[in-house]
Amino acid sequence: MLKSLVPVSKGTVLRCIACGNASELLSERAFVCTSCGGLLEVHHDFSGMNSGMVTELKHLFDSRAVQRIGNSRTPQTASGVWRFQELIMPNLQPEHIVTLGEGLVPIVHAGKHLHEWLGGDIDVSLILEGLGPTGSFKDFGGTVMMSVAKAAGVKAVGCASTGDTSAMAAAYATAAGIMCFVLLPKGKVTPVQLMQPAAHGAQVITLPGTFDDCMRVMRELVANYGAYPANSLNPARIEGHQATVFLIAQAMEWSLPDWFAVPVGNGSNSSSIGKGIRLLKDLGFVKTASRILGCQAEAANPLARSWPMVRDVQEGERLEAWRREFRPMTVGETTATAARIGDPVSREKVMREVVSSNGVMTTSTERDLNEAIFVCARDGYLVCPQTGIALAGLRNAIQDGHVLKGERVVVVSTATGLKFSSAFESRTEDVCIEAEDTRTSTVARILELL
Amino acid sequence: MLKSLVPVSKGTVLRCIACGNASELLSERAFVCTSCGGLLEVHHDFSGMNSGMVTELKHLFDSRAVQRIGNSRTPQTASGVWRFQELIMPNLQPEHIVTLGEGLVPIVHAGKHLHEWLGGDIDVSLILEGLGPTGSFKDFGGTVMMSVAKAAGVKAVGCASTGDTSAMAAAYATAAGIMCFVLLPKGKVTPVQLMQPAAHGAQVITLPGTFDDCMRVMRELVANYGAYPANSLNPARIEGHQATVFLIAQAMEWSLPDWFAVPVGNGSNSSSIGKGIRLLKDLGFVKTASRILGCQAEAANPLARSWPMVRDVQEGERLEAWRREFRPMTVGETTATAARIGDPVSREKVMREVVSSNGVMTTSTERDLNEAIFVCARDGYLVCPQTGIALAGLRNAIQDGHVLKGERVVVVSTATGLKFSSAFESRTEDVCIEAEDTRTSTVARILELL
Repeated sequence: MLKSLVPVSKGTVLRCIACGNASELLSERAFVCTSCGGLLEVHHDFSGMNSGMVTELKHLFDSRAVQRIGNSRTPQTASGVWRFQELIMPNLQPEHIVTLGEGLVPIVHAGKHLHEWLGGDIDVSLILEGLGPTGSFKDFGGTVMMSVAKAAGVKAVGCASTGDTSAMAAAYATAAGIMCFVLLPKGKVTPVQLMQPAAHGAQVITLPGTFDDCMRVMRELVANYGAYPANSLNPARIEGHQATVFLIAQAMEWSLPDWFAVPVGNGSNSSSIGKGIRLLKDLGFVKTASRILGCQAEAANPLARSWPMVRDVQEGERLEAWRREFRPMTVGETTATAARIGDPVSREKVMREVVSSNGVMTTSTERDLNEAIFVCARDGYLVCPQTGIALAGLRNAIQDGHVLKGERVVVVSTATGLKFSSAFESRTEDVCIEAEDTRTSTVARILELL
Repeated sequence: MLKSLVPVSKGTVLRCIACGNASELLSERAFVCTSCGGLLEVHHDFSGMNSGMVTELKHLFDSRAVQRIGNSRTPQTASGVWRFQELIMPNLQPEHIVTLGEGLVPIVHAGKHLHEWLGGDIDVSLILEGLGPTGSFKDFGGTVMMSVAKAAGVKAVGCASTGDTSAMAAAYATAAGIMCFVLLPKGKVTPVQLMQPAAHGAQVITLPGTFDDCMRVMRELVANYGAYPANSLNPARIEGHQATVFLIAQAMEWSLPDWFAVPVGNGSNSSSIGKGIRLLKDLGFVKTASRILGCQAEAANPLARSWPMVRDVQEGERLEAWRREFRPMTVGETTATAARIGDPVSREKVMREVVSSNGVMTTSTERDLNEAIFVCARDGYLVCPQTGIALAGLRNAIQDGHVLKGERVVVVSTATGLKFSSAFESRTEDVCIEAEDTRTSTVARILELL
């Protein structure tokens, strides 16, 4: 049973989300619509899918949850993303798949401290996507992007980033045997930022200019030199991030929570979640869809700050109103550095998914998002400040009456707190108590064990 | 099926491995044999187990591999350790189980770079135990230890450590609602070392003395004040670490590899693996057992340096000879700080398991272990220097003719490289190339895309 790939899709193309113009997945190198400049998305033709195939796929997905070593190992048992290959990238050949064991992450219930901090008696789970090979949710998309790049015969993949994207790009590129490069402004590079890409053998090129120069060069390398972008423009990444939804649906015996709470930076995660929800609903895997709670920090909330002008607009006109009201912004300082984005690359997709899911956008204060990660740590989970944005946003949404008592919410935790240790170090001194001497009774008294 | 706990064991006690003296698991507070001072181990009475129950358990373990949220969630589906509860701690009640979603970690094949570096055409897999809640393999044991502590009504759990043990103890203690403390010499504490225990709310007590003072106070708090030790003396930890073996056996459709390669510090991991192997063999889960390859770094190899005097001794006398030859040592400097131990707490257990599995001990040079982690990173995996010890040790064992062509080896990767970033930062500068100007063609030329 494990080996048969159910023939669920008749073909895969790229499509512009604005004008519908189609192009080929494997030969695409522009990564914006050549006709109108719009964002591209992957489209699989699932028109032959029927309810018998849906049932068969559910069984198949369950059977792949036990990992395998040796001859019975396949990409579908080795990865929590490729477990769902038939929904994610059905027409890709197994020999092109590049996996590092991503997507095998814990889905946990909120502990006592978080439950109380959130209030409202909500049923909250977290999917800890930071507990993967490169320490962030980017692995989910990276495995699909790099597999497509391998199938496409790409020579070099790159990005202008010092964060989770460059770590992901470097790790998957070296596993794929593809060269990886990272472009950065000279003199702005610290060893710790570059630790992961460097360890994974990426070439780091420093330019005598600004970060904007790096972005321009990156775009031109893609447009004119056949380089492959690892950033959010690459629509193959979105396909992999849908596994978040599929893992949750499987864990809920093929139903979905009332809400997915997601931090929104460039928007690849929230748009993937929306796409995954629509797919499961359209194909009949689930009966009811989830709503998206898009969460941003005060310092970088271009989508959430325009939302209040939109939310009361009549349903059919909400998307147009949002486009009109949206303004890029100059970002401020925040602990959640990975979401410090003033002009999200995938904003059109985010808007579409939030509106079509009857979702809500919310802004968390810097104070709240920092408090949230310490609350979460008191339950035993060390999550990143971007997860803090989603947790604080959820708390707002509960207080504002959007999320109701008894509703089920899944929070996407996007990275491990180990990658953002400075966010935690500030409070280290508070916990130290000095004993006067080295007698055991002195320590026992401090610990109230006497 | 998921809810029925197969009644596989008639009872659980602690037993001294030297004199066999028994004590109660839940009331034990001394953590050494009160009769002879020997190490304690957990013993479950499996005398009623039969082959039908073994078959039923295999099916049960497979069915638990799909995680669940909501009402159908159990500790056994939420954790890759408690998946095997019937073998690990069969007589513990579900309400005492403290889980953070540990044991759900990728088991990956060695990539091209590692395969070539090791040589010998060996079939190598790695279990990436660092990709869990606290970032190290300690989670496997921690969940069991803290569950037993909760069942025993323990008030405070503690350790004298700044490493993986204190992170694990603090995370699981706060999840269990038990107070956690960490004892450290004053003035020797850096914020980054304390980041995890502090975030998880542990009390850090600094003493005006040495690390030895901290260890003495810790022992006396256990002996006289009812404190519960999180360190290697606690035999409940060993039970959880056996899940390494059970996960691998499940992934190999209930067979075992020829070898487990393990870094040996205090020895809790290697002794657990030996215990788990013996259990599966004795109960009839597998037909053939694995051999243990115990790996130590030059800077701290008290067990491996006495091994050459032992290995040629006749089989029945090897254990006695090793005990005679063993000497604690003063440790040197090594990147693998977590294995910098000159007098391993569990050495008696390690010796027993290595000898009884017909295993081998090996020493890796500092150069080799550091090279190994970069080789592994070129396959896309960022592992800790302790994993480097096991990889370099495996390479030695291949070159020395212990591990043979075609044999299957599982390497235990004990922590994520993210917790040991300084081991990687040294080489960051090597990968930076400065572009002369900000023209795209300049960068394209550097990248050889022209």
